[in-house]
Amino acid sequence: MKTPVTVLGLGAMGAALARAFAAAGHPTTVWNRTPGRAPDLTDVTRAKSIGDAIAASPLVVVCLLTNDTVHDTLEPIAPELAGRSVVNLTNGTPEQARRMADWAAQQGVDYLDGGIMAVPDMIGGPAAFILYSGSPVAFEKYQPALAVLARPLFVGSDAGLAALQDLSLLTGMYGMFAGVTHALALVSSEKVSPTAFTQDLLVPWLTAMLGTVQQIAKDLEYGAEPGAAGSNLAMQAAAFGNLIDASRGQGVDPGLLTPMGDLLKRAVEQGHGDEDLAALVRLLSER
Amino acid sequence: MKTPVTVLGLGAMGAALARAFAAAGHPTTVWNRTPGRAPDLTDVTRAKSIGDAIAASPLVVVCLLTNDTVHDTLEPIAPELAGRSVVNLTNGTPEQARRMADWAAQQGVDYLDGGIMAVPDMIGGPAAFILYSGSPVAFEKYQPALAVLARPLFVGSDAGLAALQDLSLLTGMYGMFAGVTHALALVSSEKVSPTAFTQDLLVPWLTAMLGTVQQIAKDLEYGAEPGAAGSNLAMQAAAFGNLIDASRGQGVDPGLLTPMGDLLKRAVEQGHGDEDLAALVRLLSER
Ligand SMILES: NC(=O)c1ccc[n+]([C@@H]2O[C@H](COP(=O)([O-])OP(=O)(O)OC[C@H]3O[C@@H](n4cnc5c(N)ncnc54)[C@H](OP(=O)(O)O)[C@@H]3O)[C@@H](O)[C@H]2O)c1
Ligand SMILES: NC(=O)c1ccc[n+]([C@@H]2O[C@H](COP(=O)([O-])OP(=O)(O)OC[C@H]3O[C@@H](n4cnc5c(N)ncnc54)[C@H](OP(=O)(O)O)[C@@H]3O)[C@@H](O)[C@H]2O)c1
Repeated sequence: MKTPVTVLGLGAMGAALARAFAAAGHPTTVWNRTPGRAPDLTDVTRAKSIGDAIAASPLVVVCLLTNDTVHDTLEPIAPELAGRSVVNLTNGTPEQARRMADWAAQQGVDYLDGGIMAVPDMIGGPAAFILYSGSPVAFEKYQPALAVLARPLFVGSDAGLAALQDLSLLTGMYGMFAGVTHALALVSSEKVSPTAFTQDLLVPWLTAMLGTVQQIAKDLEYGAEPGAAGSNLAMQAAAFGNLIDASRGQGVDPGLLTPMGDLLKRAVEQGHGDEDLAALVRLLSER
Repeated sequence: MKTPVTVLGLGAMGAALARAFAAAGHPTTVWNRTPGRAPDLTDVTRAKSIGDAIAASPLVVVCLLTNDTVHDTLEPIAPELAGRSVVNLTNGTPEQARRMADWAAQQGVDYLDGGIMAVPDMIGGPAAFILYSGSPVAFEKYQPALAVLARPLFVGSDAGLAALQDLSLLTGMYGMFAGVTHALALVSSEKVSPTAFTQDLLVPWLTAMLGTVQQIAKDLEYGAEPGAAGSNLAMQAAAFGNLIDASRGQGVDPGLLTPMGDLLKRAVEQGHGDEDLAALVRLLSER
């Protein structure tokens, strides 16, 4: 028999996780604070209480809104959790993950913290992956079950490392979404179709610029050749003014962009005008 | 014989353009304010004066730092330009492009404004494209020559439309670069290799999230089903706080991220908590 699994939380993501476990043949028990959520979820056992839910499986997967919520939900039932493995897929900070790991250790609970790199629709599909850190024993034991959700990647026994890399990836994503939000506001200000623009121009362009993303990381780690910048920061700072001016001209709030323009300007003022974007990473890390 | 071409400006980009024309067999004449730039550029004629440069070709491609620079450079030699075609590939705003087009019309110059969607290394390669707007006659006539630089896309006879879409694409890119800059600062704060992180996690993740970018455009243009958001804004606003907290915790300045967090919060406060990112585009456009 496949490992029985309990899923706590049936929001958009928790429901997708439960669906994937059930579809893969894992006996799946679910619980949600508010009953009746995810009504279309079938082939699962809906537990009457959180205690019943936990009693049903050695592996308890938690996906609630925040880690404060997770703590408040698990604290009262700590005795029932003892001896089981908890995999917490709620988004959180490295610090929260380390605190959860400490708390779990005190309760005799094997703890894995995880960062889901997917939207619910992607769960069970090929592009999704989940970062895990914490108990190597729990990861080893439950990797086959966890693999039905998404490609599992163990990034270290320091429980905070999955959250660190998860948040770093989310940061990259939110930067991209902020840029895309602004771009769509700009094209919407003229008679340009957002979907045609996105499909024909924006997505191919961002895809091409992922090459530059790789270059930034290389320059950061190994150093760039002096004077080799194909797109020097002085030129970029000069062109950035056009983005702000044109946004204002089109009635679009430039607020999402301005900090990047300010950072470019600061880099040029501090003498990095002939360098490339890796110089900005260093400026962000200086206190 | 292939069309003779003159390139004004031998910065990183102008030099790449001249190199591509020469490599494709176009008689190529170049001029740069400061002599001696791009010393490795061969198979081109270096004109002694800007007047000589312009006299050499019916097609004059301009790639200087800013449009103010372009105007100051071309104004004194307007009489020599009359009857020729000017293709201005300098980054600028829609308004600047329209002003340049008006000025060119007064001088009897056929004018095309262009936005280069490439870094210099990509010129002549498969992923590069250039947006053009302005004179359809000039585009028709010189499209074969311009195609040696990058895939040419004509986006309208309103000279400002290439700049509008160019700046929209750059906005998307700078959002992504801002996110990546922050992400690399975060991983650098722990012992995680920036190149390994970028290659194994960040680039695959951003590639996967381009699917969401397409979805935002669709929801914006056609409307989203109510309650269908796989990643609702209330959840995203809650998770965003973790990005800010974790950044501070790791000694990374959260300044590039905060406006996106503020916008998410504002969207939730205004009742869009169960919607998706398309709601943010509308907020940016409201004055
Ligand atoms: N959706 C995504 O794209 C995505 C991607 C990666 C990671 N995540 C992370 O996954 C987690 C869940 O996201 P989601 O999209 O499923 O959010 P959601 O649809 O808004 O669902 C939130 C869940 O949290 C529960 N909850 C909230 N407050 C609670 C409390 N005080 N006590 C007990 N339960 C509480 C809700 O239960 P009720 O039904 O009782 O309110 C519901 O089950 C979040 O940490 C999110 O950051 C989501
Ligand atoms: N590089 C890229 O990745 C890229 C991508 C797309 C678009 N672009 C756009 O292409 C244009 C050129 O960029 P680049 O990378 O080639 O910049 P760059 O390497 O910094 O070169 C700047 C060029 O502008 C000239 N210039 C500056 N001020 C001038 C003035 N007052 N009078 C006459 N010439 C002047 C410089 O001549 P001197 O040698 O005499 O200073 C040089 O030829 C910019 O508008 C940029 O936004 C660049």
